[in-house]
Amino acid sequence: MELNGVIAALTTPFDDEGAVRLEDLRANLARYAGTPLRGYLILGSSGEAIYLDAEEKRAVLRCAAEAARGSGKLLLAGTGEESLRGTLAASEYAAALGYDAVVVRTPHYYKKAMTAAALVSYYRELADHAPVPVVLYNIPPLTGVDLGLDTVLELAQHPRIAGLKESSGNMDKLVRIAAARPAFPVLVGGASTVYPSLCAGAAGAILALAAALPEACCEVAVAYRAGDQARALQAQRALLPAAAAFEPLGIAGLKAAVTAGGYIGGRARRPQLPLEAAQEAKIAAAVTGLRAASCAA
Amino acid sequence: MELNGVIAALTTPFDDEGAVRLEDLRANLARYAGTPLRGYLILGSSGEAIYLDAEEKRAVLRCAAEAARGSGKLLLAGTGEESLRGTLAASEYAAALGYDAVVVRTPHYYKKAMTAAALVSYYRELADHAPVPVVLYNIPPLTGVDLGLDTVLELAQHPRIAGLKESSGNMDKLVRIAAARPAFPVLVGGASTVYPSLCAGAAGAILALAAALPEACCEVAVAYRAGDQARALQAQRALLPAAAAFEPLGIAGLKAAVTAGGYIGGRARRPQLPLEAAQEAKIAAAVTGLRAASCAA
Amino acid sequence: MELNGVIAALTTPFDDEGAVRLEDLRANLARYAGTPLRGYLILGSSGEAIYLDAEEKRAVLRCAAEAARGSGKLLLAGTGEESLRGTLAASEYAAALGYDAVVVRTPHYYKKAMTAAALVSYYRELADHAPVPVVLYNIPPLTGVDLGLDTVLELAQHPRIAGLKESSGNMDKLVRIAAARPAFPVLVGGASTVYPSLCAGAAGAILALAAALPEACCEVAVAYRAGDQARALQAQRALLPAAAAFEPLGIAGLKAAVTAGGYIGGRARRPQLPLEAAQEAKIAAAVTGLRAASCAA
Amino acid sequence: MELNGVIAALTTPFDDEGAVRLEDLRANLARYAGTPLRGYLILGSSGEAIYLDAEEKRAVLRCAAEAARGSGKLLLAGTGEESLRGTLAASEYAAALGYDAVVVRTPHYYKKAMTAAALVSYYRELADHAPVPVVLYNIPPLTGVDLGLDTVLELAQHPRIAGLKESSGNMDKLVRIAAARPAFPVLVGGASTVYPSLCAGAAGAILALAAALPEACCEVAVAYRAGDQARALQAQRALLPAAAAFEPLGIAGLKAAVTAGGYIGGRARRPQLPLEAAQEAKIAAAVTGLRAASCAA
Repeated sequence: MELNGVIAALTTPFDDEGAVRLEDLRANLARYAGTPLRGYLILGSSGEAIYLDAEEKRAVLRCAAEAARGSGKLLLAGTGEESLRGTLAASEYAAALGYDAVVVRTPHYYKKAMTAAALVSYYRELADHAPVPVVLYNIPPLTGVDLGLDTVLELAQHPRIAGLKESSGNMDKLVRIAAARPAFPVLVGGASTVYPSLCAGAAGAILALAAALPEACCEVAVAYRAGDQARALQAQRALLPAAAAFEPLGIAGLKAAVTAGGYIGGRARRPQLPLEAAQEAKIAAAVTGLRAASCAA
Repeated sequence: MELNGVIAALTTPFDDEGAVRLEDLRANLARYAGTPLRGYLILGSSGEAIYLDAEEKRAVLRCAAEAARGSGKLLLAGTGEESLRGTLAASEYAAALGYDAVVVRTPHYYKKAMTAAALVSYYRELADHAPVPVVLYNIPPLTGVDLGLDTVLELAQHPRIAGLKESSGNMDKLVRIAAARPAFPVLVGGASTVYPSLCAGAAGAILALAAALPEACCEVAVAYRAGDQARALQAQRALLPAAAAFEPLGIAGLKAAVTAGGYIGGRARRPQLPLEAAQEAKIAAAVTGLRAASCAA
Repeated sequence: MELNGVIAALTTPFDDEGAVRLEDLRANLARYAGTPLRGYLILGSSGEAIYLDAEEKRAVLRCAAEAARGSGKLLLAGTGEESLRGTLAASEYAAALGYDAVVVRTPHYYKKAMTAAALVSYYRELADHAPVPVVLYNIPPLTGVDLGLDTVLELAQHPRIAGLKESSGNMDKLVRIAAARPAFPVLVGGASTVYPSLCAGAAGAILALAAALPEACCEVAVAYRAGDQARALQAQRALLPAAAAFEPLGIAGLKAAVTAGGYIGGRARRPQLPLEAAQEAKIAAAVTGLRAASCAA
Repeated sequence: MELNGVIAALTTPFDDEGAVRLEDLRANLARYAGTPLRGYLILGSSGEAIYLDAEEKRAVLRCAAEAARGSGKLLLAGTGEESLRGTLAASEYAAALGYDAVVVRTPHYYKKAMTAAALVSYYRELADHAPVPVVLYNIPPLTGVDLGLDTVLELAQHPRIAGLKESSGNMDKLVRIAAARPAFPVLVGGASTVYPSLCAGAAGAILALAAALPEACCEVAVAYRAGDQARALQAQRALLPAAAAFEPLGIAGLKAAVTAGGYIGGRARRPQLPLEAAQEAKIAAAVTGLRAASCAA
């Protein structure tokens, strides 16, 4: 498994009563198959995994695995629960469905107890037992826990820890990880900083925005890999209005962007509030503008 | 339902492999029945609810409800999930078992989306539909979300929102809530500040430490209600060494205290690391000292 | 020197161009002399010391010392600079003018370097050399540095460290300090929590609001010392509207309160922006209401 | 004035009693003149300006201006005080000495009052009146105040606001500023992220580490400007061990690095504690290794 390029962190479609719409997920995946995306993350933070019950999570994982079969896309499952046993069970389930790897966010509810030692022990034991490789997932803006540099470097030595999704926005840490372990893939989580992250040594990105604008997001990495710095920077800057429009509005904002991107977005589950019409229009304008530009190019 | 006095936030016993031991929970409840505790919170933060799967949570709620039947104790269930639908379902389950009220922590994973408007809407809709009263539960050290003063005062007007468990340590907010709404019960969550909180207008406390030292914790409230300020302050100060010993060590520390208090503590679930022997001994010494003093008194 | 009761953290009057008005400071002090205040803090955070140059600070200290002579009030000088040598020089100057003690905020610009060891060393060396007793001053909302429990307890053993002004709002810490060192006076800095702080063992308070409403602030401590808990709580609650009105608006808000209290407030120095008329009116209403009630009582 | 390249944030030498050693500053400047540095920042955070009294600050500014005369280096003065009037006076002094621009950190003591409106008003009025261009200086790890994206973009329109020193480490903000205002120079403050920052559109860097290792720091920018991405990344990575060695140890650590770089470092002023020998040795090893490599290249 080569972990690189741009991977979309997919959303989970619901109907207006909040029930999961597997057919919409299937339809989206059929259309993502034709994009240059390197792969998909199912049930990440963008997928509202935290709002799904256990059976819903399994159903989504099954549906996505079936829908993506044969697409050649990398298939990642978000399986992080707060308990080690819960995460391990979810990871075994995903592995049995054919997922290439699991992406596991730091447990974080009991913050003070999540010491470096506890996190190292957690991920090691998980990687020892999970049937597929484990990707660390650090997202302190949501968890309030930060997987420190030394912890990452220690875990990177485990043969079955395959990479890191780093959504802290900490460029200093990225530079240091990439310098210390150039073969350990780091995938960043912020659409606005993909290009400088690639320059710093990131292997790629796992992006919520790529669920709305897969081509435009991929363009940054494609241009960078082609050695065309100017084009990569231009592609990076092109993403900014869309990112700025949806990011302050949570998953509801993201889903509005997904809809504007031509996929099935729908509402976020409560307690997330639905957007106001003006907020939706602003997101739609930013996404549609970029989408038109991408298709023309 | 009168929400006051000292309520113990109970732990959930596991065996060494991490399986729930309902018989130990039952045994603990049989012994808590003889204490002056006002009631129990089942599946709060101290109960590792976040580490249990759905079926385990239901089994614990059932077991505790049966074991506590006829005890005259107030019975509270922690039913907060991240989604409104999940919280509502859990609250209905608890109500059907006879719980007096549900204690619902703020949803918090998507922090930026948890605006005052989103939280007001969430708790209102929950209180409109839950079959038992709702107690707000604010614990920013774990959630990273803070239920602000104005939000609390707005929600306190809902006839089925019965109180607030306030674990922020914010005395300023407590003083202001109690002044603005003297009939709205606030129960604080920190064992070291029960006495000044009562002075400021708190109705009582929901305490993890009360699962280890119920008599010593109750003594603060009893002396306060009796108008004996000096004895209340003395009882407050008596709690400090035990609180200081276990608090930095998370649920593992709390369970060591519960064991030292004469109840069945056991291990915390992973990723919480087991304590070292020296840490356990320190907690045991602090708890045992106070327990001896309480019994003598 | 007995450090207790309510001490007012005085403001420094400026004219509309921002020049210091010593005559206004003198006039204020003449009127504060007739209040039940235990003393004054000159050049604290409320005094905009950080906006004054060295000569202005010396002039203010001189003026206040002269104006307060013979009043029987405790006279404290804020002399904390970032450097040890600067703080020591300012403390010597204040001592020569007859100040009873110096109140020294934690140095904080280089936050990571302000370890417990650095802070212990700083305060110890200062207390060894300053000609008057040193009061520690912890105000993390402004400094971003927190003087921890163990650091305070270690420094409290120094014979010339006379107390702590604690403006963190951390009730847990206050309870623990007062339990461990009952003879070491802690003076809290928040007007809304004076009463529970006294219950927890605080010796008194140093309050910005006391520069606007000395009688109303003192009433909390007077009632508490008289053993009248109900009256103390009532006096505490009476302060809340005035505190809520000015606190969000910084020194400009405080000065509007001082004016409304019948003293000479004036403007804050830039970069603090002047208040809008509606903000001023709201503060004036809250202060005037309480002032009328105090005088009637 | 073209604001770009690598500018060293110089240290201020003291003797063992903490007195300023102007002759050492002069000697350092004589040697920096032969390096490829674009210029110097005198009295920045690295210069311990916050520990100097007013006369010392003026003496350092005078000495550096004289010593740098004719060197062709850009000469920047840190003149930020908490008050607008203090900052303006210091800026006028620096301008009269021939400094090319002033670098002004955000005022920050009264954090809540430092709203976007207050900061915009402060910098605008300063830029209106200061005789030389103003460079904004954002360093939230020290100040606890963050100059937000919109505030920067608004201030960037002022004809006499010449750039931004951005030491927040916020790459997202840098990308957005550079995209929105490509002609407004942003200079980053962290040695470990110079290369990705240049890729993102930064004009250059103002670095403490450049006071110890000017050649090695400049190499990143030189390679980048030459279009040699691989060499720039290599030069960036070469800086990491030295940066990692000194950064956790504050100004004392920086000064040890300056000494190891062949310049006169000396001690930091108290309350910063002197380093232990092992800490100094570690820094010296990291700096000396890189220095040897730079000279060989």
